[in-house]
Amino acid sequence: MVLRSHALLSPKLHFRVLEFRVYTEETVFCFNSLTMAEDGVPPLDNLPLSDTVEEAAFSQRVPIRSILCRPDAGAGLAGQTLKVGGWVKKGREQGRGSFAFLELNDGSCPANLQLIIYADVAPLGQFTPTGTCLHVEGVLQMPPEDKQGKQSIELKVSKVLEVGTVDPAKYPLPKTQLTLEFLRDYVHLRPRTNTISAIARIRNALAYATHTFFQKHGFLYVHTPIITTSDCEGAGEMFQVTTLLNEAEKKAIKNPPASQEDVDLAKSVVKEKGEIVAKLKSDKAGKPEITAAVAELTKAKENLSMVEERFKPKDGKLDYGKDFFARQAFLTVSGQLQVETFACALSSVYTFGPTFRAEPSHTSRHLAEFWMVEPEIAFADIEDDMKCAEAYVRFLCQWLLDNCLDDMEFIADKFDKKAIERLKMVASTNFVRLSYTEAITILEEAVSKGQKFEHKVEWGIDLASEHEKYLTEIKFESPVIVYNYPKGIKAFYMKVNPDKKTVAAMDVLVPKVGELIGGSQREENYEVIKERILEMGLPLEPYEWYLDLRRYGTVKHSGFGLGFERMILFATGIDNIRDVIPFPRYPGRADL
Amino acid sequence: MVLRSHALLSPKLHFRVLEFRVYTEETVFCFNSLTMAEDGVPPLDNLPLSDTVEEAAFSQRVPIRSILCRPDAGAGLAGQTLKVGGWVKKGREQGRGSFAFLELNDGSCPANLQLIIYADVAPLGQFTPTGTCLHVEGVLQMPPEDKQGKQSIELKVSKVLEVGTVDPAKYPLPKTQLTLEFLRDYVHLRPRTNTISAIARIRNALAYATHTFFQKHGFLYVHTPIITTSDCEGAGEMFQVTTLLNEAEKKAIKNPPASQEDVDLAKSVVKEKGEIVAKLKSDKAGKPEITAAVAELTKAKENLSMVEERFKPKDGKLDYGKDFFARQAFLTVSGQLQVETFACALSSVYTFGPTFRAEPSHTSRHLAEFWMVEPEIAFADIEDDMKCAEAYVRFLCQWLLDNCLDDMEFIADKFDKKAIERLKMVASTNFVRLSYTEAITILEEAVSKGQKFEHKVEWGIDLASEHEKYLTEIKFESPVIVYNYPKGIKAFYMKVNPDKKTVAAMDVLVPKVGELIGGSQREENYEVIKERILEMGLPLEPYEWYLDLRRYGTVKHSGFGLGFERMILFATGIDNIRDVIPFPRYPGRADL
Repeated sequence: MVLRSHALLSPKLHFRVLEFRVYTEETVFCFNSLTMAEDGVPPLDNLPLSDTVEEAAFSQRVPIRSILCRPDAGAGLAGQTLKVGGWVKKGREQGRGSFAFLELNDGSCPANLQLIIYADVAPLGQFTPTGTCLHVEGVLQMPPEDKQGKQSIELKVSKVLEVGTVDPAKYPLPKTQLTLEFLRDYVHLRPRTNTISAIARIRNALAYATHTFFQKHGFLYVHTPIITTSDCEGAGEMFQVTTLLNEAEKKAIKNPPASQEDVDLAKSVVKEKGEIVAKLKSDKAGKPEITAAVAELTKAKENLSMVEERFKPKDGKLDYGKDFFARQAFLTVSGQLQVETFACALSSVYTFGPTFRAEPSHTSRHLAEFWMVEPEIAFADIEDDMKCAEAYVRFLCQWLLDNCLDDMEFIADKFDKKAIERLKMVASTNFVRLSYTEAITILEEAVSKGQKFEHKVEWGIDLASEHEKYLTEIKFESPVIVYNYPKGIKAFYMKVNPDKKTVAAMDVLVPKVGELIGGSQREENYEVIKERILEMGLPLEPYEWYLDLRRYGTVKHSGFGLGFERMILFATGIDNIRDVIPFPRYPGRADL
Repeated sequence: MVLRSHALLSPKLHFRVLEFRVYTEETVFCFNSLTMAEDGVPPLDNLPLSDTVEEAAFSQRVPIRSILCRPDAGAGLAGQTLKVGGWVKKGREQGRGSFAFLELNDGSCPANLQLIIYADVAPLGQFTPTGTCLHVEGVLQMPPEDKQGKQSIELKVSKVLEVGTVDPAKYPLPKTQLTLEFLRDYVHLRPRTNTISAIARIRNALAYATHTFFQKHGFLYVHTPIITTSDCEGAGEMFQVTTLLNEAEKKAIKNPPASQEDVDLAKSVVKEKGEIVAKLKSDKAGKPEITAAVAELTKAKENLSMVEERFKPKDGKLDYGKDFFARQAFLTVSGQLQVETFACALSSVYTFGPTFRAEPSHTSRHLAEFWMVEPEIAFADIEDDMKCAEAYVRFLCQWLLDNCLDDMEFIADKFDKKAIERLKMVASTNFVRLSYTEAITILEEAVSKGQKFEHKVEWGIDLASEHEKYLTEIKFESPVIVYNYPKGIKAFYMKVNPDKKTVAAMDVLVPKVGELIGGSQREENYEVIKERILEMGLPLEPYEWYLDLRRYGTVKHSGFGLGFERMILFATGIDNIRDVIPFPRYPGRADL
């Protein structure tokens, strides 16, 4: 404990050290989350703790998580010599510049490892600015006994291997409280903040939990296409994917599509040139003069036919026959229809990938690019679908409690005090199930008792956000699954119920975000679904492949979609969806 | 064993049964792959076998895998009543139409479960066509003793719950041998074939293995953007993403971009109209006539200025300021640059997502949409990078041997007899490591000994496929990592070595497909990478964010990219990349 005896030489210095301790009490402590929980593995705190710790396999450092997130918070490792790397969160010279304390974070957990570095190892000034990258070797040591309640193990640096300096005057992330909105202008640096890195770990955990859940249950992961020529919902709010534009732009300079006005203009030129020729002829003008005028007329006629050519066949449209895929192509809005082709062959499948909506929507709930999880299950009806949705959401919540409690504690503290309570509630509660008709009755009763809604409640409406919130936050204080919606407000592929009025659709509503999951049993009857497509005013031809699934060996099947970012909003209580995806895309913004 | 005594009533019938047995010898048997291997779980064949089997959690059936892929091939389940669902691979009525044998596959494993169904349960004709979907209840029973070597347990159907029929005259997948090329025209039905479903399971296994590998090693999964405004390689072969076209097309009819010819035409009209006015004036024509002519001139001038307006500012280009993201946007060609922002904050990260190349390439190795795995590791140099790449590829190979042996056996039998041997070799072999310079020397020696190459071998060339094949298939018969490539043939972001001639790049070459992985240590020095960008003739402005990572707290880091489909080609020996992705996209084709 060389440091301490040194640090405590003078009462003044002692005071400074204490002051610093107070300063570092924001340090986040972490929990038993050293390894992913796997079935059959005994709880970590029953394991004998090793007194050594290994370097990351492909990185010349020991993850800080492996030190601080042991049940003993690293105490058993005191005396070990090892390398760590990370970025300085806070640094301060102490002892009249004889040493410095640095809070180092490497992203492996929310907690920082405290480094102590002496001026005889290296000049200290370069290390203290926030954002400095350090790769160091040192010895782990316990703080003095009177500090051990507040401060866990620290590393006394013996050798600086590498340093990536920061000029604090230029660093775009100031030390003062940063708003999430401010950070959206720095998507390339914001992962270095506590909040965005905690969200990144939570997002990672939910993604891996998703795969684990479905793989455990025998589902196969299918990569549905991103570029598609099918429009799932017939909604039309799709991004177009093309290689024509660069080509088209080059050509446009030479040969633009023609408009009616171009044609009229060309016609008027022909007419004028014709009149000139006629006039010259009637005036008995000289032959060279008439020949020249006729040549001009001929040229004008040729121009007219060219303009008409450019105008007529394409009506001013691009020739998609010449596009990369020889037709118009779009970014997918959902992998559902395509993943059904695999469900109708491999039975239990899921897709997890990016989806896109070109809605010019600026709300805190919409992104132009977002990730969706879409399982699809053969030999499953709407009941099975609801069972699966509930089990999946509860699994995700439990997974976060088991694997990300340290990050959740941080997020709960900063953003939503109820976040952990909510996860626990959902993980342990059977979801309420209500038919749409029952839900409407409940809402009508509420209205009759004085509850105010902006949107009128009556059978046939789509539930508004306020209605969903009432059901899940006020009436039941629990996740609620509403099923059997009116046919008229749902997509063509949902199974028509025997009542002919409703379809076997279901939405999972949760406190805080409302609709988290939308799903349905799919209409597997060829005649019925064909009828539904026509009823919706959609053309049959693009859906022939989808109809084939019903023509040949049709099967009862069901599925749903979970908006992955919605799930993160629900888990964390973060307000804006732009903060829970690494690189948000929305109208006017697609940084990097 | 009612069936057997019945089936063996007459010698003729017996013969038929035998004939059928021969017919079903194509049946694929499966191996100890009931559950995913997890560390610490004892090998399956040491586990006590349960004599009951559970239904899938969210599907009203027992997966056929749970029956046939037990070490006892289901024998211990004889007598159990259960439901199964799936599609008929082969069906044949027997015993003068008194019963039928149906080979049922549900996609949970390559093996089919044999069903026996009697005519008194339901009319048999509807069940036998290939592709028929069946959901049935029945009792598992062992075949007669003399058949037990060839035939595993079968299900005697007691109740048909649902049937999805097929008209064999119309079913697009005939019974005869289907080529993979033929199947590409039926991407929505081809998952029902043995080959495509086996590939789907192998693909699923490799995807989950990928996540498992990186999660085990503390890497965080980061979703890099699909829509991007950065061009990683500066290559330019990108798809454009836009919402302008539909708008533009509507407007184009009213207001097309103008060409030089439009401008000239409009000018000529102004000139003519001017001349008419001048002539009328000099002819002292009447005021109304002149006024009318002036009005026409004014209109022509206005038209000219409109045409010039449409011509000048945009040079015939679209106004991207009005596009969805207020600028040109593209589909990503790699998540590397973006994932680096997370590596420079969270240390060990990876991305696994779709990437796109708008190359008009029709080869069996290129897709317009494909999936890439890209880890990025802070505090890691090129050595660590090679270690990680090798460990990852070997992990994938071992995972397939542990979890997909039944599918691999099927694929090896049909497509590449050496596939399993190759997996075993790679899983157990230390990869050869060669510097590029050493590789060139080896190739030059080979040439001097008579080896013929189409492309000349000399220091500075990019290794051609034939060179890679020579190294990995002939010289070393092992995976080979080539590192330290000439600077001139590699990307700007790769770290310049002290020799100033080479960069710390590495490619993993494997037998059969050649380059499987490309990676590098990244240049972390601000001045050097800035110089490199300029040297490549690239503009600095779009890379300012990338430079920021070097400006503020820069860190040594490395990473690589694995083409996921390439890995599947390598594992399976399948020749065409279009057959190892569910929905292949290539020039002229984007079905569904």
